[in-house]
Amino acid sequence: MFPGDALDDYFALLRFPTVGTDPRRLRDCVECAMWIKQWLVPHGFSCELMQAPGMLGTPPIVCAERKGGEHSPTVLFYGHYDVQPADPLEAWETQPFEPTLKDDGRVYARGAQDDKGQWFSFLCGMKKLIDAGRPMPTVKIVLEGQEESGSPALTALAPTIKDRLRADVLLVCDTSAADDLRPAIIAGLRGVSHFTVRLEAARHDLHSGEYGGIAPNPAQGIAELLASLHAADGAIAVRGFCDTVEAPTCEERAAAESAAMSDERYEAVMGCPPVGGEKGLTPTERNSFRPTIEVNGIHAGYGGPGSKTVIPASALAKLSMRLVPGQRPCDAIACVERHLRRHVPRGMRLFIEDATGDAPGFRLPLASPVFRLATDVLREMDRRGPVYQWDGASIPVISVLRDCSGAAPLLVGWGQPQDRIHSPNESYGADQFRLSMTWAEKILSSLAG
Amino acid sequence: MFPGDALDDYFALLRFPTVGTDPRRLRDCVECAMWIKQWLVPHGFSCELMQAPGMLGTPPIVCAERKGGEHSPTVLFYGHYDVQPADPLEAWETQPFEPTLKDDGRVYARGAQDDKGQWFSFLCGMKKLIDAGRPMPTVKIVLEGQEESGSPALTALAPTIKDRLRADVLLVCDTSAADDLRPAIIAGLRGVSHFTVRLEAARHDLHSGEYGGIAPNPAQGIAELLASLHAADGAIAVRGFCDTVEAPTCEERAAAESAAMSDERYEAVMGCPPVGGEKGLTPTERNSFRPTIEVNGIHAGYGGPGSKTVIPASALAKLSMRLVPGQRPCDAIACVERHLRRHVPRGMRLFIEDATGDAPGFRLPLASPVFRLATDVLREMDRRGPVYQWDGASIPVISVLRDCSGAAPLLVGWGQPQDRIHSPNESYGADQFRLSMTWAEKILSSLAG
Repeated sequence: MFPGDALDDYFALLRFPTVGTDPRRLRDCVECAMWIKQWLVPHGFSCELMQAPGMLGTPPIVCAERKGGEHSPTVLFYGHYDVQPADPLEAWETQPFEPTLKDDGRVYARGAQDDKGQWFSFLCGMKKLIDAGRPMPTVKIVLEGQEESGSPALTALAPTIKDRLRADVLLVCDTSAADDLRPAIIAGLRGVSHFTVRLEAARHDLHSGEYGGIAPNPAQGIAELLASLHAADGAIAVRGFCDTVEAPTCEERAAAESAAMSDERYEAVMGCPPVGGEKGLTPTERNSFRPTIEVNGIHAGYGGPGSKTVIPASALAKLSMRLVPGQRPCDAIACVERHLRRHVPRGMRLFIEDATGDAPGFRLPLASPVFRLATDVLREMDRRGPVYQWDGASIPVISVLRDCSGAAPLLVGWGQPQDRIHSPNESYGADQFRLSMTWAEKILSSLAG
Repeated sequence: MFPGDALDDYFALLRFPTVGTDPRRLRDCVECAMWIKQWLVPHGFSCELMQAPGMLGTPPIVCAERKGGEHSPTVLFYGHYDVQPADPLEAWETQPFEPTLKDDGRVYARGAQDDKGQWFSFLCGMKKLIDAGRPMPTVKIVLEGQEESGSPALTALAPTIKDRLRADVLLVCDTSAADDLRPAIIAGLRGVSHFTVRLEAARHDLHSGEYGGIAPNPAQGIAELLASLHAADGAIAVRGFCDTVEAPTCEERAAAESAAMSDERYEAVMGCPPVGGEKGLTPTERNSFRPTIEVNGIHAGYGGPGSKTVIPASALAKLSMRLVPGQRPCDAIACVERHLRRHVPRGMRLFIEDATGDAPGFRLPLASPVFRLATDVLREMDRRGPVYQWDGASIPVISVLRDCSGAAPLLVGWGQPQDRIHSPNESYGADQFRLSMTWAEKILSSLAG
């Protein structure tokens, strides 16, 4: 069961269609940020909606602060209220922006988990602590509206407000628990960059009979270009791309493998065997410690019913890379661009556009005081104790906030594969919501001393 | 200038959105066929709209006949009133089904050339002959509504109405003239088959961070699968596909090359150099005498603004093959299917769907009486005389009609590259329309004796 007093607010939050990449949703983002402010202020927070210098017209950043006990440490809590686009709409069983609580005890909506559900449940736990008059550390909150597009505004703003951000611990609730909801502390994240590749040949689509064998075909060309990015064994075939990758320590690798899902469990969750990526490495090694170059979309020519015998004039692909420690994002993009330019099929023109997300990957020291405290708290919550995970996903802004706040990151979240984040029918369960609340109460109490 | 009395009827014909592959356009196809019947009857034709046995719900076939001089030969005239889909609509400068005569002396509309403009201008020439009371051969007319999807209904109907079809010459006006509108007789056509390839992996789209390096990616998989169809030199890499290809004779090859466009002209027309297909062969050889496997479309994952970091659950590709004499369509499809099944990327499921268009390619004997007669008529029209061309396109039903009618095919048409058939902003020029009329008058007069 969801806590009754939180559900109305949770639904109200999910109804804002805050697709941060879509300029038509800017007003919804502003309204959502104002709603959040109105939610925080009654709980003793001073709160301001901020804009990065020179970046008007981007979703505002909610910055809030509540003073705690005099000698308590300062917590910087980070989350994002923007969400991924909802398409393909026809694959949703309920409306993506009309949250629906189903009999399975889960709320279905875009953002139900990522990240509205995760941070809102944490704040609900914090609210319980405040309402009960329990000791609290100083809490600073930053909630932004551009995480899914690489946090450009917060990245620009953070270095200008270092004093406001200064903290001891950077708390983030935007990651997953281990299998069966066993708590997990994220010990590393991959970086991310994305960009668009366009191939052009003829001025317009051509008849595939009249010109087949004569005209270069960008639909075929983009297939060849993208296929060239990987070798037959699934390894990345881009020269120089993996040269500087830092291998994990034995301790890291052992901890990661001990928390790994079985192949059978992956197949049950994904609906296909976990055979993507480089042969000869375990799925955990590939996801935690190796980079990827992933095709997120390809579009060229006809795709409707029946057939249309054309040679398309152009083709488009959306690509993203996940990066690991040792790889500088700018070098990685340069390697891929060089590779693509070297492999442009004959007679075609290549365009690389919208390269964004200049975020490196990172790994955190397992022996730090913050990790030890969190481990104790999570063992109280679940006698199995937490696992340490090196998540294949990215929260690019974490590196920025760490640098600007001086805080030690502590990433604990309650996602599960069945949440289907970034996919149709995203959802978040009552059990997850409650665990997140409990985690907030316990870690904030511990930090308050 | 277009002949004024023909223009209204031409426009009326073009306004029917007769996209034969789209079931929602069936009513428009029926209305178009009825309009054609009403146009033919006043000129002395008996006319019937026919349906293939057991194929109700397909566009009707217009069958008409007009008796000519007692000892004159019988002409079977074939054309099609269906057109390609009009998309992408946003690339049209005028409405595709609202014909527009521009100052350049060209009518812009889907079907303006292919094939409504071509056969309607021919029938306008015939009408002049009839109106003037000049001698006419017996003319049988077959106009169908499914040519762009492989003529399934006419292919089924033709063997059941052999007596109605029996003729001496099979006249078709659905091809192109040579460069600069020099007349061309088509001495061969390629066959065609098309089909859809679908790759599936996960049950739904996955987060490219959480699962990148673990989940197989169908967008990358379809790229690898399609890339495997060709070798690095552009040659088809499907085992067995080209083994039975019959090489042209020296005479055929010489005639084809003498009529070839220059590379510069191709580049001017297409907007890109003519470097598609197999290296080491001329563009004419590749288009006239070699088969192709062409990607008509690829669609997978995200393609909108910004980025969406997903691993798509599935990918789709539309493919077509052009076939030459010596290749049996069923064998060719079997080769490609075998190749695709052998190359399915790990962890993905392959589906091959909607395989249609069981049409072989053919080449006609250059020394036949019909070719000699047509050559003389075309030399009268243009002192340069006709060129012989082996067109890379396909009219699958020609083989069927030749077999069922016993007639010798004679394919003379007036298309030009700038007509942009199958593309946005298709058009047909007044000069082409008039040449087609003149050709009709002269060849029908010659055949009438």
